[in-house]
Amino acid sequence: MNFASDNWAGAHPAIAQRLLEVSPGFSAPYGASTLDRKIEKRFNELFEREVAVYFVSTGTAANSLALAAVNRPGGVSFCHREAHMLEDECGAPEFFTHGARLAPVDGANGKIDPHNLKAEIERFPPNFVHAGQPMAISITQATEIGTLYQSDEIAAIAKIAQTYGLPLHLDGARFANALVALALTPAEMTWKRGVDIVSFGATKNGCWCAEALIFMNPEVSKDLPFIRKRAAQLLSKSRFIAAQFDAYLHDDLWLTMARYANAMAERLQKGIVNSTQARLAWHAEANEVFIILNKTHANQLQEKGAVFYQWNPPRATPGLLSENEVLVRLVTSFATEADQVDRFLELLK
Amino acid sequence: MNFASDNWAGAHPAIAQRLLEVSPGFSAPYGASTLDRKIEKRFNELFEREVAVYFVSTGTAANSLALAAVNRPGGVSFCHREAHMLEDECGAPEFFTHGARLAPVDGANGKIDPHNLKAEIERFPPNFVHAGQPMAISITQATEIGTLYQSDEIAAIAKIAQTYGLPLHLDGARFANALVALALTPAEMTWKRGVDIVSFGATKNGCWCAEALIFMNPEVSKDLPFIRKRAAQLLSKSRFIAAQFDAYLHDDLWLTMARYANAMAERLQKGIVNSTQARLAWHAEANEVFIILNKTHANQLQEKGAVFYQWNPPRATPGLLSENEVLVRLVTSFATEADQVDRFLELLK
Amino acid sequence: MNFASDNWAGAHPAIAQRLLEVSPGFSAPYGASTLDRKIEKRFNELFEREVAVYFVSTGTAANSLALAAVNRPGGVSFCHREAHMLEDECGAPEFFTHGARLAPVDGANGKIDPHNLKAEIERFPPNFVHAGQPMAISITQATEIGTLYQSDEIAAIAKIAQTYGLPLHLDGARFANALVALALTPAEMTWKRGVDIVSFGATKNGCWCAEALIFMNPEVSKDLPFIRKRAAQLLSKSRFIAAQFDAYLHDDLWLTMARYANAMAERLQKGIVNSTQARLAWHAEANEVFIILNKTHANQLQEKGAVFYQWNPPRATPGLLSENEVLVRLVTSFATEADQVDRFLELLK
Amino acid sequence: MNFASDNWAGAHPAIAQRLLEVSPGFSAPYGASTLDRKIEKRFNELFEREVAVYFVSTGTAANSLALAAVNRPGGVSFCHREAHMLEDECGAPEFFTHGARLAPVDGANGKIDPHNLKAEIERFPPNFVHAGQPMAISITQATEIGTLYQSDEIAAIAKIAQTYGLPLHLDGARFANALVALALTPAEMTWKRGVDIVSFGATKNGCWCAEALIFMNPEVSKDLPFIRKRAAQLLSKSRFIAAQFDAYLHDDLWLTMARYANAMAERLQKGIVNSTQARLAWHAEANEVFIILNKTHANQLQEKGAVFYQWNPPRATPGLLSENEVLVRLVTSFATEADQVDRFLELLK
Repeated sequence: MNFASDNWAGAHPAIAQRLLEVSPGFSAPYGASTLDRKIEKRFNELFEREVAVYFVSTGTAANSLALAAVNRPGGVSFCHREAHMLEDECGAPEFFTHGARLAPVDGANGKIDPHNLKAEIERFPPNFVHAGQPMAISITQATEIGTLYQSDEIAAIAKIAQTYGLPLHLDGARFANALVALALTPAEMTWKRGVDIVSFGATKNGCWCAEALIFMNPEVSKDLPFIRKRAAQLLSKSRFIAAQFDAYLHDDLWLTMARYANAMAERLQKGIVNSTQARLAWHAEANEVFIILNKTHANQLQEKGAVFYQWNPPRATPGLLSENEVLVRLVTSFATEADQVDRFLELLK
Repeated sequence: MNFASDNWAGAHPAIAQRLLEVSPGFSAPYGASTLDRKIEKRFNELFEREVAVYFVSTGTAANSLALAAVNRPGGVSFCHREAHMLEDECGAPEFFTHGARLAPVDGANGKIDPHNLKAEIERFPPNFVHAGQPMAISITQATEIGTLYQSDEIAAIAKIAQTYGLPLHLDGARFANALVALALTPAEMTWKRGVDIVSFGATKNGCWCAEALIFMNPEVSKDLPFIRKRAAQLLSKSRFIAAQFDAYLHDDLWLTMARYANAMAERLQKGIVNSTQARLAWHAEANEVFIILNKTHANQLQEKGAVFYQWNPPRATPGLLSENEVLVRLVTSFATEADQVDRFLELLK
Repeated sequence: MNFASDNWAGAHPAIAQRLLEVSPGFSAPYGASTLDRKIEKRFNELFEREVAVYFVSTGTAANSLALAAVNRPGGVSFCHREAHMLEDECGAPEFFTHGARLAPVDGANGKIDPHNLKAEIERFPPNFVHAGQPMAISITQATEIGTLYQSDEIAAIAKIAQTYGLPLHLDGARFANALVALALTPAEMTWKRGVDIVSFGATKNGCWCAEALIFMNPEVSKDLPFIRKRAAQLLSKSRFIAAQFDAYLHDDLWLTMARYANAMAERLQKGIVNSTQARLAWHAEANEVFIILNKTHANQLQEKGAVFYQWNPPRATPGLLSENEVLVRLVTSFATEADQVDRFLELLK
Repeated sequence: MNFASDNWAGAHPAIAQRLLEVSPGFSAPYGASTLDRKIEKRFNELFEREVAVYFVSTGTAANSLALAAVNRPGGVSFCHREAHMLEDECGAPEFFTHGARLAPVDGANGKIDPHNLKAEIERFPPNFVHAGQPMAISITQATEIGTLYQSDEIAAIAKIAQTYGLPLHLDGARFANALVALALTPAEMTWKRGVDIVSFGATKNGCWCAEALIFMNPEVSKDLPFIRKRAAQLLSKSRFIAAQFDAYLHDDLWLTMARYANAMAERLQKGIVNSTQARLAWHAEANEVFIILNKTHANQLQEKGAVFYQWNPPRATPGLLSENEVLVRLVTSFATEADQVDRFLELLK
């Protein structure tokens, strides 16, 4: 009954098998191998345009280098107040941008409120050096709390980005889960709605270590080769990342895994709705279900073998918890077994 | 006939196999799994003391975070003028230390000359803010040009480090190759000679992506958990690095691979010595052989399928090459086949 | 009728005169002159303890180096959401700390609310690398909106700082104005209430360029000499700052100027209270008066020669302005003339 | 008998007098005042073209921000091995460029050798991410050891800069001393020879604190306003720097002071040439004279009231000193009195 996080799972056997297969032989290092090139082309197909692709070793690296690519002195990037890059990356985005700021923007359901976003950007008059200057907007899809920006919500943020001449970044640590939930193509969820840069995460969805930073306009990333190398993110045997993506993107394995994970989350969600011992904190839309439990009950579940994290309630939900209640996050993945879900729901009763 | 670099090889089958084996199941991420802990303990045995171990994804990250751990404002680290961290890491060490400097020190055979080292350190009077302040010394073992610091040479550098209160770092991208060539134990080649911090590389010696940063005195690394996370180097499925080390260190696989690579280099070296068409640039001591060829000859070899890099001659060897000659680097690894070596030597004639 | 800012004034004649007097002769540079030493001792008297004093050229430098002195990887400093260092220093504090974050804390009247402060700090569990780590708290006295932390309010923030082991910094760009308004001694407004580091500003109160960074515990600043030099803030003819402080602190000139500036603000405030054409946004406590005007009226005043800035309303005061109203900041200084105040009030009618 | 440094002198009375004159009244801060604008125009006249001018508070800031303006990830700037920015700025240039490197280039007489410069630049193949990328060349005029780049020597360096597409920076901490010694105009010593960016120092030549960063092509500095503010170098009462330049550039005061300082150096030099107790280390060309003394003799002179520094011999002059000899630097300025020079020469005998 492990619902702690999708990164508690290992790798899908097909991914590890592919690594085994490509182990022998010599290949050009530092991203120059045939396999690296093949995967780069695969991403062009996937996004239906010529994109620039950079493999890195963590999602934090992808997010940080995305901002580093569009960095400005005194730069300010706008993201949700509880975005992963703001709350869970130990200041890496600021570090890799030499101190550019992440400005928190409030919004319900883990999503940036366009009205608030505009108001915050407006606090930076052009060429007013004291305030600094806007440099990017970043959204997370699926969000940190398991919700989704709908297609038109992405477009609304993108419109603001365009108005102020700012690149729009999408943190896709759970890109696949969002994609299948919304039934969109990669192109539709990104550049067709105005997204410029994507952190394309695969680690949480069945890889060992496979993250790609994608620029819809390759020109924007012209400094990235040096930025990435200086960031210690140019892996010598880069083809081991390429090999993971090779298996990941083959025969829609990535979508299959994401659909499965989402289905397990939905199974959990349905059980919670029918439970008298727990309630949903909000509606789950991808592979994370947030529920509210009595504190004692939560502890008992953990004692009985359920693995999960208690979570800080979003600041925008002041009355969410009664005293003695806790917010609990349940995450599913390709590795979640249906009978473990059922057992958890049984225990819950 | 691939002698381009040890990172052109893939991974040893036993390494990839181990990854396959540990793929299923749930494990705590971010270095907290049982397997991570097991490997940490394994390093204690290896170094015969309690060390602090941090997995990172590249050797550049290991070197950079080693310096970041001992960083000082206006800090200056001393390394050989042609050290990898100075010539081949795109300024990563400076970036991760917010601009601390790498001061080049000259020395023959790719090794820091103790006399020069002392003279350079002496240019920094204590508390003289204008010059900045010494912060570390770094040596590479095996060196960038395939030579080795002998046991007493390490001790001589370490003595200077102690005199000036500086930590001594060892860039061990080819740690194993040096170790077996010198017939020393890890303890003997490091802390017993005065080395404080080691970049323990395994990627070049048969892993996919496995680098460990080792602190002989764990207290020195007390900020490293935050430094590493902020550097985007805390991998979520960290156990995939642990698994590689598990196979690597098992049954002396790492030493076996290094001995084999060194033996292939020696086979090359012997052939060169007997050749009339090439000569050694200097004596090879680990798994890199530098030879001098006629330019036309070098091109012909490449046309016939030999893969290698031409190399910048060290600045300290002004008369090394005649006109029309080039310096060529030949690197061997666990994947180098003896008959490929022989075929190359045959072609050379 | 210039109420734009206290930095629109030049320097008090006594300050400029002192510069003229000390112009001839040779003196040790870089802070080593007799005059530098004299002023350092003067600060010991002023603060009634042995403090460490560092001259720098801007308030932004003082604030930034204060944080740099207590920097931690992944560090987070807590300040009011509309603090100068967060809104008006172009990211300098983040830059000089290599990306450490300024976390905004809400609070009424321009002051950090202790309850909110505690809640924000609590979001950082000890040793939880993902979130980063708390590193400092910073308050501004007088605040950006002309209010004051009362003595016990400083103590309340300091108590939280102590609980979490965080240094407490005070941005004293208008230190003197606050001091005379509260009728406290420098010691009483700082370390006796738990303040550890002070940006002691004099530029806004009648100097040309005189800012001092004061550490109540000199040990905390042991790296500052290198940090300051590396920050390009060690002025060679540092005694020109010392000379300004010499005149500034002589015969209570600084307090006299601050009292005068505050009195002019009070004169303005009284006039506003009696006006039917304007109202106070909130009660002014030092040398800044914030008033609410009809937009047309504000423009007319500017056309008639009144110089002032319109200001962003604090986020915590959503209903402050009706449509067609603007928030206006009026700042007084040693150079403000009473008849200009009266003329402005006359025009206002 | 003070020959310690030109920054031991205070300010010329005309400079301090001008500060006194501009003290009263209100002016726009942050470089927006009428006086600031006047001086900016004055620099256009001086350089015979429209330049961009940025006041900063130290020469280190000017040099550092010059490089920050042309920064590149993995960037490498080439300067003389004993350049001030490399040896005496505590790593500030590296800090303000987030770790871009200063690569030392050897050359006799304190000047970059064009042949060595080219060889070092050639070590960076285009787009070879491992090495990093060239980003600027910097020369010092007058050099750290009191010599001068002749007009054609500047042009030779500039030609290399153009070949590799690199901006050429000139550290002019002693710009005036060089200018009058070479009898060139500012335009002739800079852009007419290919210099792109100038640190125009005035502090060492009779000001309190007046440094200007000059871009021959204003477009190159388009980010500088934000870079400078973030660097804590935008002074609020910026007109106090403008006032110093106003007096400095008025009626050729700056050239008069520099000529006088150089003449005093020449007086010293002549005396040394005729002395049997000391010899010139090399020919002095501006306002710094380097002499070689017996150690005991040097100490005696200091005991008798002569103030000067002993200096590290340049690395390129291995046989310069016999045992028991020391290298001594004597610096003159507008404040050096002829009878003090004579008294020193007398004592020397």
